[in-house]
Amino acid sequence: MEVLLLVPSSSSNSRQDPTFVHSYAIALLINSQKDSLSTQQHANTLSVMAFESHHAPTIGSTPFSTESYFQTQRPPVGLEEKTKLMLEFVERWKSVQGKKVVLVTSGGTTVPLEANTVRFLDNFSAGTRGATSAEYFLSQGYAVIFMHRLHSLRPFSRHYSHSLNPFLDLLSVLPQSEPSSSSSSSSSSSKATTTKPNIVVSLTHSSTLLPILEAYHSAQNEGTLLSIEFTTVNDYLWLLKSVTGAMSPLGRRGMFYLAAAVSDFFLPEERVAEHKIQSNKGTLNLEMDSVPKVLKPLVQEWTPEGYIVSFKLETDPALLVPKSRAALSRYGHQLVVGNELHRRKYEVVFVERKTPLSPTKGDGDNRLSGVETPPLDAEAGGEKGLEEEYKETWLRLDDLSNTQTNGISGAETNTNTNGSSTSGHKGRDGEVEIEEIIVKELVDRHQRWIEAGTN
Amino acid sequence: MEVLLLVPSSSSNSRQDPTFVHSYAIALLINSQKDSLSTQQHANTLSVMAFESHHAPTIGSTPFSTESYFQTQRPPVGLEEKTKLMLEFVERWKSVQGKKVVLVTSGGTTVPLEANTVRFLDNFSAGTRGATSAEYFLSQGYAVIFMHRLHSLRPFSRHYSHSLNPFLDLLSVLPQSEPSSSSSSSSSSSKATTTKPNIVVSLTHSSTLLPILEAYHSAQNEGTLLSIEFTTVNDYLWLLKSVTGAMSPLGRRGMFYLAAAVSDFFLPEERVAEHKIQSNKGTLNLEMDSVPKVLKPLVQEWTPEGYIVSFKLETDPALLVPKSRAALSRYGHQLVVGNELHRRKYEVVFVERKTPLSPTKGDGDNRLSGVETPPLDAEAGGEKGLEEEYKETWLRLDDLSNTQTNGISGAETNTNTNGSSTSGHKGRDGEVEIEEIIVKELVDRHQRWIEAGTN
Repeated sequence: MEVLLLVPSSSSNSRQDPTFVHSYAIALLINSQKDSLSTQQHANTLSVMAFESHHAPTIGSTPFSTESYFQTQRPPVGLEEKTKLMLEFVERWKSVQGKKVVLVTSGGTTVPLEANTVRFLDNFSAGTRGATSAEYFLSQGYAVIFMHRLHSLRPFSRHYSHSLNPFLDLLSVLPQSEPSSSSSSSSSSSKATTTKPNIVVSLTHSSTLLPILEAYHSAQNEGTLLSIEFTTVNDYLWLLKSVTGAMSPLGRRGMFYLAAAVSDFFLPEERVAEHKIQSNKGTLNLEMDSVPKVLKPLVQEWTPEGYIVSFKLETDPALLVPKSRAALSRYGHQLVVGNELHRRKYEVVFVERKTPLSPTKGDGDNRLSGVETPPLDAEAGGEKGLEEEYKETWLRLDDLSNTQTNGISGAETNTNTNGSSTSGHKGRDGEVEIEEIIVKELVDRHQRWIEAGTN
Repeated sequence: MEVLLLVPSSSSNSRQDPTFVHSYAIALLINSQKDSLSTQQHANTLSVMAFESHHAPTIGSTPFSTESYFQTQRPPVGLEEKTKLMLEFVERWKSVQGKKVVLVTSGGTTVPLEANTVRFLDNFSAGTRGATSAEYFLSQGYAVIFMHRLHSLRPFSRHYSHSLNPFLDLLSVLPQSEPSSSSSSSSSSSKATTTKPNIVVSLTHSSTLLPILEAYHSAQNEGTLLSIEFTTVNDYLWLLKSVTGAMSPLGRRGMFYLAAAVSDFFLPEERVAEHKIQSNKGTLNLEMDSVPKVLKPLVQEWTPEGYIVSFKLETDPALLVPKSRAALSRYGHQLVVGNELHRRKYEVVFVERKTPLSPTKGDGDNRLSGVETPPLDAEAGGEKGLEEEYKETWLRLDDLSNTQTNGISGAETNTNTNGSSTSGHKGRDGEVEIEEIIVKELVDRHQRWIEAGTN
């Protein structure tokens, strides 16, 4: 039998911010016992030895603040080159009168368990929300920095997922032996045959593909789409800080659409194992720290003028609105898009402050400080107070949208206050996509935010 | 301060198999303490309450055997339909004289931490090895069941990764206004214009794409490729059992090429959280169990006649050969392909028994029973004994292969005994791919295995 002494990874006398103390410790304890000749005593001795050779929880260590994170965790390889690309992109579009720029983050971040990574923690996200939204931002005239997980879905090519709609199925080989119409001309027919493209997109697919391809070429030719890749949560945090700084000179013309699924925990680099963790080495202890809440400095310091939209994904519908409100209260930004895992393609909720947009952002609700979810059993007065301060606008795709073929109205917008109403158009695949409605609503709000700043 | 009592999840009097006892316990302990008004005492009370409300390690529980795994873990949705497809596929090719069938598994398996999955553990694998090998097995005349992680790389389309070589870049839109050669004909030119495909693959890309597309169409037309998808390790285990049973009637004509990166640990379904784990709920305890070693029943019971190739991925080169030998010894199958994470695209090692292939497989080396890695400090006699029993054949891509443009020899094969030698051909992308050499070597061995069975 083993006895482990675990203590909170933050002691009360070393808190950096008494209002927001988050001390998480995740211990991975692997106890392996394979040798049938071992006595129980022997196995335990082995376990303790292995345990002691790894990092053990210590008393008095503090959780990472944003500041201490960037002081201690190394920037990823390639950060400089990517930052240069982002700076050039912003500089170019900043010089174009009235051009708006949006950062779209997309896909999940990983937490590698080994430096030579075999195993990692991941956050579920194919990148559909981000890739789809990026397309609609482009069509609304935005320049888009698409910061996404490597190999997650991308704008335009997302329509042709290798598993669901493989592009190879679009293609036909024109038979070489068949006399082509060019053979009727008197000019050298052999030359015409060799220069004629002989792989074509079948006509049945080209009407769907054509507008996608044209929008893709248009973004390429105009340089309105910059794609930047990340894999780990460390990549993401460094890139986010970097791109936010790069976009800060845009002032209110910059929007931040933070749809990536970011890990809550990470392994500080000094504790990441060098090699693949062997499952037969006795007890192993890994301690994971909470990822600093970078949204707070992003909102308050890195880009005080940006229009910031964060996302809250929950699987329990009852938590969606309370947690979205708490995030607004905590970070003081403009809008939270709440989505429930299984309904996220048909329904989202915009949570924002009820008061008309002021020239400055909110700076938080003291009643909620440090509480991510308001207690559900709070007294009636407190609940009412919250409801008066925030409003929710539900965006839903009409249930009929899958069966409609001609109508363009496939969505409804409900608000529990006096919100606006919008309708969805058919997406490129013939179905309404909720991202079109989300983006349209946000573009309106962003425009009002810009205008409020110029008054 | 908290005191947790952890005991091995298997007690000595309840072992099912005294030779192979693997008791792993992974405890995820999250201690959160946000309320600045809480006393230390209060926080600890909360922690203990939360801890007790989850599954706690119990004394005397046994690790999962393959049998108990399938008795307690539910089959994934869709297993029946997929099994039906696999049975039909095998039935069809079994009736073709001499046709060989290979199961290729590819990509990593996940371990969801929640039933409504937001977070999961994953194993690093893009699926390159499996997807590439499947292509070469097809070109060698095999029928291929390609059992792969959803959205991992696939045969043929792997050449056009959305991030590295996006297919949209291959395509050109032929200008509609340009007079086409068909307009010179006297027949209705408007009809010719509308029926003419107007999206084509640019000539610069079509010479590379054409052989890939033709091989893809050929596999489709002949029905030689069956793709089956998995996501979680539970999907994988059920499918593996099912497909092995389906392939068993093939006898020695069936090969198993197990290249998927399979999790070592899993969460039994009764302990998977229903909803997204909230990071602010105090201490949380998750206990992960070791995945049963299904290779043993697969080799000995499910398909006693199949030719079975397993893979061993390590990041520490010193462990590669010892662990590969141990796997052979433990499971009694024919061959282990060892690969080191950073050299896996240029170098692999075949580890197999030195003795000529007998009509039956090996049944294990008693000296190594239950030991995955032979002790490195074993006495000289023991080491020599092992070296006499196994042989390693190193397959390496020639360092010159990247600069050669005309030569077809781009690989070398070294063996520490009297192995054969082979050379690599240019792959479709103009570079030698090590999978071509691996597959060629395996096809030879598989053929000898078949012939040994008919003597």
